[in-house]
Amino acid sequence: MDKIELSSIGYVKREELSNEEIKNHNLMAELVIKPEYADGLKGIDEFSHVYVIFWMHQMTKSSLNAPFSDNPDMPDVGVFATRAPVNPNHIGLSLVEILDYKQNRLTVKGLDAYNGTPILDIKPYPNWPGSKLQVVSKFRVPDWLSKIVE
Amino acid sequence: MDKIELSSIGYVKREELSNEEIKNHNLMAELVIKPEYADGLKGIDEFSHVYVIFWMHQMTKSSLNAPFSDNPDMPDVGVFATRAPVNPNHIGLSLVEILDYKQNRLTVKGLDAYNGTPILDIKPYPNWPGSKLQVVSKFRVPDWLSKIVE
Repeated sequence: MDKIELSSIGYVKREELSNEEIKNHNLMAELVIKPEYADGLKGIDEFSHVYVIFWMHQMTKSSLNAPFSDNPDMPDVGVFATRAPVNPNHIGLSLVEILDYKQNRLTVKGLDAYNGTPILDIKPYPNWPGSKLQVVSKFRVPDWLSKIVE
Repeated sequence: MDKIELSSIGYVKREELSNEEIKNHNLMAELVIKPEYADGLKGIDEFSHVYVIFWMHQMTKSSLNAPFSDNPDMPDVGVFATRAPVNPNHIGLSLVEILDYKQNRLTVKGLDAYNGTPILDIKPYPNWPGSKLQVVSKFRVPDWLSKIVE
C-alpha cells in the first residue's frame, strides 16, 4: 500500500519556457490527453475552470524546507507551506481556465507546468464534496507570502 | 517516464464513515504525517486552508464515464468532468480548513477521504503560481451539477 504506481493520462504541450516565463498566467498551454482517455473529457467545457494535477518529472531533488529557507529575510517554513516542486512526491496542482476543447485536447490558461509534463488527473472547479459548491473567498495566508507574490 | 511511483507522506485518521457521511463537511479528520516528513509542515498553520492530495486506495475500478451515466435524467459526461473516484489514477483532492496543528498532525475540516487513506501531498490555498493569489470567484459550471449538489 505504501508504494503507489500511477500512469500519465496525457502530457502538456506548449512552448519551452523559463522558470520565470511559466509564472505568466496569460500564456496558453495544451493538455494533450491520450486517445484512450479522451472520452473522459466529455462535457468538461461546461466548466470554465479545472484543476490539473501533474507530475513534475524534471525535478530530481526533494527538501522539507522552503526554497527560500537560506534567505535571512524569510521565515523558516516547511515545503508543504509552499508551492515548491521539491515536495517529497513531485506532484503539481494548477487551477486553469479552459479556452478550447477538441477531441483529446484542452487549451488552457494559467498552467504552471513545462512542456512535456505528464498529466495525472483533471478535476472540475470548484470542489463539491460537501453539499454545496465549495468556493473559499475568506481565508488567511502568512505575511511572508507578500514577499514572494506580487 | 510513463510509470510514476509515489510514496505516501502519511495517512488519514478519522472515524469509519459511510459514503454519505463523508460528504458532511463539518466532520473533522486528522492528517497524520510520517515523522520523517513532519518538518515539511512548519508554518502551515499560518494558512487557514490547504489542499490535500490523496490516493483513494480502496477504489479498484476505473471508468471514463460519470457514475450517473446510466441515469436517463443525467447528461453523458466523462469522468474528468466529475469528482468520481473511478478516475484512471485514483487521486483525490480536497480543500480543507486547518483547525489544529501539532508536530506531525493536522486536524482539518472538509476532507473527502476515508480513514486510512494515504496522503500524497499538502499544498497551501489559494494557488499563486502567477503573480498574484489566484482566487476564482467568477466561474461557470454545468446545469446538471445542481442535480447532484444541493
